[in-house]
Amino acid sequence: MATINTEKLSSARFAEATNAFVEVFTASVNFDQRMAQQDIQGSLAHAAMLGKIGILTEQELTDIQHGLAQISGEIERGEFVWSVKQEDVHMNIEARLTDLIGIAGKKLHTGRSRNDQVATDIRLYLRSEIDVILVQLKRLQIALLDVAEREADTIMPGFTHLQVAQPVTFGHHLMAWFEMLCRDQERLQDCVKRINVMPLGAAALAGTSYPIDRHMTAELLGFSRPSNNSLDSVSDRDFAIEFAAVGSLIMMHLSRFSEELVLWASAQFDFIDIPDAFCTGSSIMPQKKNPDVPELVRGKSGRVTGHLMSLLMLMKSQPLAYNKDNQEDKEPLFDTVDTLINCLRAFADMMPHIKAKHENMYASAKRGFATATDLADYLVRKGMAFRDAHEVVGQAVRLGLNSGRDLSELTLEEMQGFSLSISADVFDVLKLEGSVAARNHIGGTAPEQVRKAIAVARVLVGS
Amino acid sequence: MATINTEKLSSARFAEATNAFVEVFTASVNFDQRMAQQDIQGSLAHAAMLGKIGILTEQELTDIQHGLAQISGEIERGEFVWSVKQEDVHMNIEARLTDLIGIAGKKLHTGRSRNDQVATDIRLYLRSEIDVILVQLKRLQIALLDVAEREADTIMPGFTHLQVAQPVTFGHHLMAWFEMLCRDQERLQDCVKRINVMPLGAAALAGTSYPIDRHMTAELLGFSRPSNNSLDSVSDRDFAIEFAAVGSLIMMHLSRFSEELVLWASAQFDFIDIPDAFCTGSSIMPQKKNPDVPELVRGKSGRVTGHLMSLLMLMKSQPLAYNKDNQEDKEPLFDTVDTLINCLRAFADMMPHIKAKHENMYASAKRGFATATDLADYLVRKGMAFRDAHEVVGQAVRLGLNSGRDLSELTLEEMQGFSLSISADVFDVLKLEGSVAARNHIGGTAPEQVRKAIAVARVLVGS
Amino acid sequence: MATINTEKLSSARFAEATNAFVEVFTASVNFDQRMAQQDIQGSLAHAAMLGKIGILTEQELTDIQHGLAQISGEIERGEFVWSVKQEDVHMNIEARLTDLIGIAGKKLHTGRSRNDQVATDIRLYLRSEIDVILVQLKRLQIALLDVAEREADTIMPGFTHLQVAQPVTFGHHLMAWFEMLCRDQERLQDCVKRINVMPLGAAALAGTSYPIDRHMTAELLGFSRPSNNSLDSVSDRDFAIEFAAVGSLIMMHLSRFSEELVLWASAQFDFIDIPDAFCTGSSIMPQKKNPDVPELVRGKSGRVTGHLMSLLMLMKSQPLAYNKDNQEDKEPLFDTVDTLINCLRAFADMMPHIKAKHENMYASAKRGFATATDLADYLVRKGMAFRDAHEVVGQAVRLGLNSGRDLSELTLEEMQGFSLSISADVFDVLKLEGSVAARNHIGGTAPEQVRKAIAVARVLVGS
Amino acid sequence: MATINTEKLSSARFAEATNAFVEVFTASVNFDQRMAQQDIQGSLAHAAMLGKIGILTEQELTDIQHGLAQISGEIERGEFVWSVKQEDVHMNIEARLTDLIGIAGKKLHTGRSRNDQVATDIRLYLRSEIDVILVQLKRLQIALLDVAEREADTIMPGFTHLQVAQPVTFGHHLMAWFEMLCRDQERLQDCVKRINVMPLGAAALAGTSYPIDRHMTAELLGFSRPSNNSLDSVSDRDFAIEFAAVGSLIMMHLSRFSEELVLWASAQFDFIDIPDAFCTGSSIMPQKKNPDVPELVRGKSGRVTGHLMSLLMLMKSQPLAYNKDNQEDKEPLFDTVDTLINCLRAFADMMPHIKAKHENMYASAKRGFATATDLADYLVRKGMAFRDAHEVVGQAVRLGLNSGRDLSELTLEEMQGFSLSISADVFDVLKLEGSVAARNHIGGTAPEQVRKAIAVARVLVGS
Repeated sequence: MATINTEKLSSARFAEATNAFVEVFTASVNFDQRMAQQDIQGSLAHAAMLGKIGILTEQELTDIQHGLAQISGEIERGEFVWSVKQEDVHMNIEARLTDLIGIAGKKLHTGRSRNDQVATDIRLYLRSEIDVILVQLKRLQIALLDVAEREADTIMPGFTHLQVAQPVTFGHHLMAWFEMLCRDQERLQDCVKRINVMPLGAAALAGTSYPIDRHMTAELLGFSRPSNNSLDSVSDRDFAIEFAAVGSLIMMHLSRFSEELVLWASAQFDFIDIPDAFCTGSSIMPQKKNPDVPELVRGKSGRVTGHLMSLLMLMKSQPLAYNKDNQEDKEPLFDTVDTLINCLRAFADMMPHIKAKHENMYASAKRGFATATDLADYLVRKGMAFRDAHEVVGQAVRLGLNSGRDLSELTLEEMQGFSLSISADVFDVLKLEGSVAARNHIGGTAPEQVRKAIAVARVLVGS
Repeated sequence: MATINTEKLSSARFAEATNAFVEVFTASVNFDQRMAQQDIQGSLAHAAMLGKIGILTEQELTDIQHGLAQISGEIERGEFVWSVKQEDVHMNIEARLTDLIGIAGKKLHTGRSRNDQVATDIRLYLRSEIDVILVQLKRLQIALLDVAEREADTIMPGFTHLQVAQPVTFGHHLMAWFEMLCRDQERLQDCVKRINVMPLGAAALAGTSYPIDRHMTAELLGFSRPSNNSLDSVSDRDFAIEFAAVGSLIMMHLSRFSEELVLWASAQFDFIDIPDAFCTGSSIMPQKKNPDVPELVRGKSGRVTGHLMSLLMLMKSQPLAYNKDNQEDKEPLFDTVDTLINCLRAFADMMPHIKAKHENMYASAKRGFATATDLADYLVRKGMAFRDAHEVVGQAVRLGLNSGRDLSELTLEEMQGFSLSISADVFDVLKLEGSVAARNHIGGTAPEQVRKAIAVARVLVGS
Repeated sequence: MATINTEKLSSARFAEATNAFVEVFTASVNFDQRMAQQDIQGSLAHAAMLGKIGILTEQELTDIQHGLAQISGEIERGEFVWSVKQEDVHMNIEARLTDLIGIAGKKLHTGRSRNDQVATDIRLYLRSEIDVILVQLKRLQIALLDVAEREADTIMPGFTHLQVAQPVTFGHHLMAWFEMLCRDQERLQDCVKRINVMPLGAAALAGTSYPIDRHMTAELLGFSRPSNNSLDSVSDRDFAIEFAAVGSLIMMHLSRFSEELVLWASAQFDFIDIPDAFCTGSSIMPQKKNPDVPELVRGKSGRVTGHLMSLLMLMKSQPLAYNKDNQEDKEPLFDTVDTLINCLRAFADMMPHIKAKHENMYASAKRGFATATDLADYLVRKGMAFRDAHEVVGQAVRLGLNSGRDLSELTLEEMQGFSLSISADVFDVLKLEGSVAARNHIGGTAPEQVRKAIAVARVLVGS
Repeated sequence: MATINTEKLSSARFAEATNAFVEVFTASVNFDQRMAQQDIQGSLAHAAMLGKIGILTEQELTDIQHGLAQISGEIERGEFVWSVKQEDVHMNIEARLTDLIGIAGKKLHTGRSRNDQVATDIRLYLRSEIDVILVQLKRLQIALLDVAEREADTIMPGFTHLQVAQPVTFGHHLMAWFEMLCRDQERLQDCVKRINVMPLGAAALAGTSYPIDRHMTAELLGFSRPSNNSLDSVSDRDFAIEFAAVGSLIMMHLSRFSEELVLWASAQFDFIDIPDAFCTGSSIMPQKKNPDVPELVRGKSGRVTGHLMSLLMLMKSQPLAYNKDNQEDKEPLFDTVDTLINCLRAFADMMPHIKAKHENMYASAKRGFATATDLADYLVRKGMAFRDAHEVVGQAVRLGLNSGRDLSELTLEEMQGFSLSISADVFDVLKLEGSVAARNHIGGTAPEQVRKAIAVARVLVGS
C-alpha cells in the first residue's frame, strides 16, 4: 500500500513547520500519480470537445495535444518531476502543461473542475485495471479446466464438516472452484456497467455555464453515457465500494482454494504436491515444503475486506457534494487492484503444476466408508423402507470398522447376513467408481457429467 | 448496594445439563422458521418431481401435498409447535409431516439432503424479500420524483466541503439521491440473477444416484436454471454476501440522505421541516423536534455493514463443502432484509411530507457569494484571460464581504471599477436564478434540465 | 440477535398507518427490556440520593422503593406488560411506577434525563455480564490446565505452515491456548476500568441545576467514580466498542482452537476424539462425527467482529452530544454478550472430554523428520560449522526418505558415513522424547517446563 | 480514442518469469525494512546473551557488534542496498553481516529463528511508535486544555439530535473531547503492557535446545518479561489487533471532532474560524475556506477501522503456530501508526489556532429557547408539580415563538400570566449565564466546574 512518505514526514521527526507538514499531509500526488495516463486521456477528450464548441482555437488545441503527449512520454520514461507542492496528479500535469505551452494550459480547465476530473480519471483507471483482472481471472479459469479435465476420473473423498462423506472426483472439486470464479467474473462485468458512466461535465458540483457537449467526450473516452446528475457525479463513490465488494468475494474464494491446498499439501492429507516455485523449503529439512503462496493469498483476503470496510465507513454520512474525505478512496482502491491481479496471477501460474497424488486420494476416500449412502440408496431401490435400510447400513459399517475393512471389502455372505435384499450387484455401488458414476445428472460428480461441465465451460470462457 | 449477584445468575443460567445446552446452542429453529413457507414450497416441487420419475406413488404424492398444505396453514395461523429438539425448520416440518402422513413423509427426502434443501430455501426466501425491498425502493424513488418536480425551481446553496459553492435547485439535489437509488436497484437485480440458480439436487455434496430431473424442479420453483456443480451448490454463500454488500450501499446512501436531513432541520440551516410523525418532541420545548427517523436510519447503516463483514469473515478459509459454520449465514441476512425494508419504507413515507423553507434556502445561497464562479465565466466569455478574471472576481467578493452585500447587489459602477468588460448583462449571471439556468446541459442544475431528468426517470420507474 | 418484531411489522405487510409503523420502528423496548433490573437498580440509587438532598420526602422515597420492588418482581415473574407505546424500558418502568404510586413516580426523574439514565443502565448491565463472561473464561482456562497436565508428556507434531516442524507436547500446545485466554482476561478487566465510571448526573447533556450528590450515587452503584464531563457522559459509547474489540479477540482465539479441533478430528489427522455431546452423527454412517460445536463457534467469530464494525461505523462522525443513532448500540452489544458466554461455556464443557489419541500423534510426529533441527544443533555443539551441519542433515533426511525411516531409525554406521562427529549419543537427540526434553527453558516445550508453566498458571487462576 | 491498451499493459507487466514474480510477490523487504533498527537492536541483545552463555566467543561477539553498528549506519545514511532476493529485513541484514564479518554472522542465528525474531522486532517497533503517538496525543490534550481555559465562560448551544437543547460553555465542550483522549491514552498504555512481552527464544515454535538466558535478553531489550509459551509466542498477533482497535477508537474520536469543526466552520453555524494553514481557499472565492484537514482526518477514520477488520480476518481460523499469512500483519500496522501520528499532530497543531466567534455562538444559543428546562426546574423548586410546570413552560415558549423573543425577553407580567409562582428571580435562570452557572456539580457545564476540571486535567497530563 502506498503510504504517505513517513520517512520524510518524520525525518527530523516533526521538525518541519506546520505549513510544510500540512502540505504533505493533504497532498495526494504520492499515490494518485498512478492515474497520470488516465488524466491525460481525459484531458485530451475534454480539449477536443472544447475545440469543437469553439472554446479552444485550433492552435490551442494542437498545443495542448502536443504538450500532453510530451508529458505522457516524460511520465512513461520516469523523467517527470512530481511535486508535493502541486498537491495531486491533476495539478502537477496542469502546471507542467502551462510550463510547456503557456496560458492555453490553464484554458484546458474551462468547463470542468478537479471534482469531475478526478471522478473521471478514477473511473477510466478502474475500468482499465478490471480488464487486467479479467485476463488473470480467465487464465486461472482455463488452468482449472485443464487440470479438471486431466483429473475428471480421479477419485478423492468429498468432505462435509471436514469428515469424509462421499467420494467425488478431483475434477469435480476443481469445477466447484471454477463456478465461484464464474460468478466473480459476472460481478466484475456488472460492476463495470456502473463504472462506465462519465462524470466529466459536472464541474465543481452544478454543471457549467459553457455549452459543453458531454455526449462527445463520453464517446471519445469510451463511456456508455454521461452521468445524469452533477451533484451525484462528483460525490458518488459507489463504484469503488462495489468493486471492493466484488474483490472481497474473489479473495474469499481464493482463501478457500488456499485453505484446501494447504490442507492437501500437509503430511496428514498428502493429496497433492505444490510446485517448488510456489513454496519455500529448508536446507536442513529437505522433505519440508511450506506452501507460501497459498498461505499468503489466504492472508491477503483480509486486506481487501479491510479496504471494503474502510470505503463504506468513508462514505457513511457524508453530505453532498464533494468533501476532502473522498481523497481517501484511492489508496484502498489501488491496493485492491494490485492484490487481485497478483493473487489471481499467482494462482493461474501455480494451478497447472499442482500434482495430484492419486493413490493417496483414493485410499483416503476408501478408508472413510464413503459409499454408505450408496448402500442405503441401493436398499431403498430394492424396496426396503428407509428406516430399515439405515439400520442395515449401520450394521455393515460397524462390521467394517471392527474388522478394518471398507464396505466394498465385506463378503456377500456377510452383507446378506444383514439383509437378503442384497445381491452381488451391490458391489457396483459400493465401489468408489460405482458411487461417483451413479451421480450422473447435471451438477453431479460422475466423470461423464464433469466432462460435460468442462465442455460447456470451455465454450463460456472461449478456451 | 452491590452489583447484581453474578454467581447466582450464572448458576441459574447454567444449571441445565451440557446436552440440553448444546441442543439449544446448535439449534437454528428459533430463527430459520422464518423460511418455513419456502421450505414447503421447495418440498412441493421436489415431491412433484419424485412423483414424475416414479419414486413416489401417486398416493404418496397426494398425501405429501395434503400434509404440507395442512402444515402451511398451521404455521400461518400460528398453531405450529416448533421444537428445538428438531433443530431446524426443515426437521420440524419433516417430523410433523411424518406424524401426519406416516413413512411417505420420510420418503420425501429421497434424492435430497438438508444441505441442498437449506440452500434452496434461503434462495427462495431472499428472492422473495428482494421483491419487497424493490417495492419500497421504488416507492421512495417516486416520492423523490414528486418532491423534485415540486421543487424544480427552488434555489438552495450547493455545498462542497459544507461550504456554499454554487447555487443549485432543491429538485436537482433530490435527483442526486434518485440516481443513487437507481444504482441500488440495478445492483439488486444483478444480485437476483445469481440468487436465482437452484442448488436442489446437489444432495449432501456430490449429487444423488436417483434419476432426478433438476430442470423440472427448477422450473416449478421459478429458478432460471439448476446449478452446475454439486459441491459448489451446498457450500456457496456468495449470494448472501453480495446481497449484504448491495444492502450496505443502500444504507450508506440512506445515511447520506439522513445526514443532510438532520443538517437541514437544524436551527442553523433551517432549510426544511420534517413532519411530526417522524420526530419526537418535548412537552417543555415545543419548538424542539428531534429528527429521530433520519438519525435512526443513519445509525442503522453500521448494522448492515457489520453483517457484511460478519459474512465475509464467516466464509473466509472454509474448505468445501458444507460446514456447520454456514448456519451463521441466516441471522445477518434476515436482519439485513428487515433493516432495508423498514428504512426504505420510513423514507418513502416521510419524503412526501418534507417541507422546504424556500426563503431560508434562497437567503443562504445568496449569502455565500455562490455566483462568483459565474462572474469568472462571464469575464472569460468576454475575452478576459483566466488569471485576470480570477483577480477581478476576488476584488468584487472582497468588496461584497466588506459591505455586507452579495455580488448581485453591487452596482454596475462598482463592478466596472474592477473591469470595463463588465456591462449591465452581468446581473443575469450574478443572480441565483441566472446562475442555475445557465447550467443547462445534461446533468446540470438548470430547472429545464431537472424537469427533463424527472421525465426520463418517470419512464424508468413507470410512475 | 433480537430483531424488531418483523412479524408484527409486516403482518398484513405495511397495512398499518405510518404513525403505527414509525412507533414500532423507533421503539427499543423489544430489546432494551433486557436492562430492566439495571434500570431499577439505577433508579433506587438515584432516589436514595434525591432523598438525602431533600428533593424526595421520606414517604416519596419509600413509595418509590416499594413500587420499584414490585415492578422488579413483576418482571422476574414474567408478568410485566411491556408496551411499544412507551418506547423503551425506562419509560415502561416509569409509567408503571406512576400507575402504582402516583406523581412521586414522575418526581424520580428530577435531576436526570433518559440520556444519562440509559448510559448508566448499559454500563451496569455490561459490568455484570462481563462477570459472567469471566466466570466462563476461567472455567475454560482451568479445563485447559487439567488437560494440559494430563498430556504434559504427550508428544505430537508441532506445525508451521501446517507442515510438521518439530515435536512438541500436547500439553504445551494447550498451554498456548491458555496464554491467549490470559490476555483476553486482562483485556476484559482493563475494559471494565473504563466501563465502571458513572454517567448519572449528566442529565440531558449539561448537568442539572439540582444540587445532586454524584459521589453518593456512584458509591451506591459500585462505580469507581462519577464521570468528569456531562457532554461526554451522554455521548460516549467507547466502552461498547472496546468490549466488542475484546470480544472479537476472544472469538478469534476460539476460532483458532476450533480450526485445530476440526483438523485433529478429521480422519486424516485423527489426533483426537470429540465427545458425542458436541457432535452430530449420522444413522447410516456410524463412523462419522461432525464436530458441530467447534464449527459453529468458528463461524460465530465473524458475528462479533461484525458487531465491532457496526459500532465503529455507528459512532463515526457523530456530533455531540446524544443522537438517536446511539439506540443502535444495544443489539450488537447484547448479541456479543450472548455469543461470548455461550461459546466460552461450550468450550469449557467440551475440553475436559477431548480424548487425545497418543499413538497417532506420536506416529505423525515421527513421520515428519521432526528432529532434523536437533541433529543440526547436535553437530554444531560438536563443533561443526553451520553450513556443513546443514549439509549433513540434508543427506541424512534424504536417506531416511528413500528408505522410509525416521532419523532415529538410521544406524550409527549410516550416520557416521555422513560425519565422523556423530557418536552413539546422537540417538538421545534424534528421539522425539529427547528433542522435546532438550527445549528446557522458560516457554520451551520440555515436559518439565510445561509442568512449571501449569503450576504458575494454577496460582494465577486460583485453581 | 480507445481505452488504454490493457493487453499491452498486461503483457508488459507480466513478462517476468513466474519465479521472479513469486519472489517479489512473497518478499516483504519493501515494507518491513522499516523495522531495521529494531532488528539490529534485537540481534545485539541476542548476541550479548549468546556471548554470556558461551555460544559466541568474545571475538565473534565483538565482530557482530561492529558489523551491526556499521549496518545500522549504512541504513541511516540510506546507503544500504536492500535486495528482494533476500526476502525480508532480517535476511538482508544477516546477509550483509556475513559479508562483513564472515561465518560469525550466521552463528548469530543460533538459538533463534525468523519466527521469534520477527515477532520480537515488531513488538520493539510498535512499542517505540506508541511512544511517539502518546507524545502527539498529549500535545493535543494540552492544546485542548489551553483553548478550554480560554473559553471556559464562552456560551454556546449544547445540542442533542443537532437541535439546540441547553446552553453549555465552549470550554466544557472541548473538555468532552479531552475526556475521550484520556481514555485513548489509557487504552494505549494497557496495550503496551501486552506488547512488552518478549517472544525471543521461542525459536521456530518449540524453543531451542541451547541453554539460552531469556531473562537476560528481555532485560537488555527493556521487555517486562519473556513470554510463557513458545507456540503462542510465534503465532500471537493479538497486540497488532488490540493496537488497531485502540487506534480505531482514536480515529473515531477525531472523526467526531472533525465533524463538529466542519459544521461549526460552515456559513450556517459560523461558530469558529479554522486557521488558513489547515484549509484550502479559492482564488475566485476569497470568502470560501475548505476545512481540508478536519475532512481528511474524518475520512481517515475508515482507514484504520479497515486495518482492524483486515487483521481480525487475517488471524481468523489460523492453526498454530506460524503461517506465512502472518506476513500480512505489517502493512496495516505501519499504516495505522502513520495515520495516528499524522492525524494527532495535525489536530495538535491546529487546535490552538481555532478562533471561537463568541457572538455567533451566544446568539445561536439564545435563539433556541435553550433555558426552557431551567424554567421548568425553577417552577418545580417553587413547589409546582411536574406536569403543571411543563404545561407552563410550553405556554411560555409558544408565546416566545409567536413573538420572536427568547424566554429571557418575555416580561415578568407575561410570565406571571402563566403562573403566579414566577417572580423576578426567574430571570437569573432564564439567562444563558444563569443556566450554565447553575449546573455546578462535578461534570456540569458551570464555568467554575470547567475550570476545576481543567486544573485536575493539567495535573494528569503534567502541563
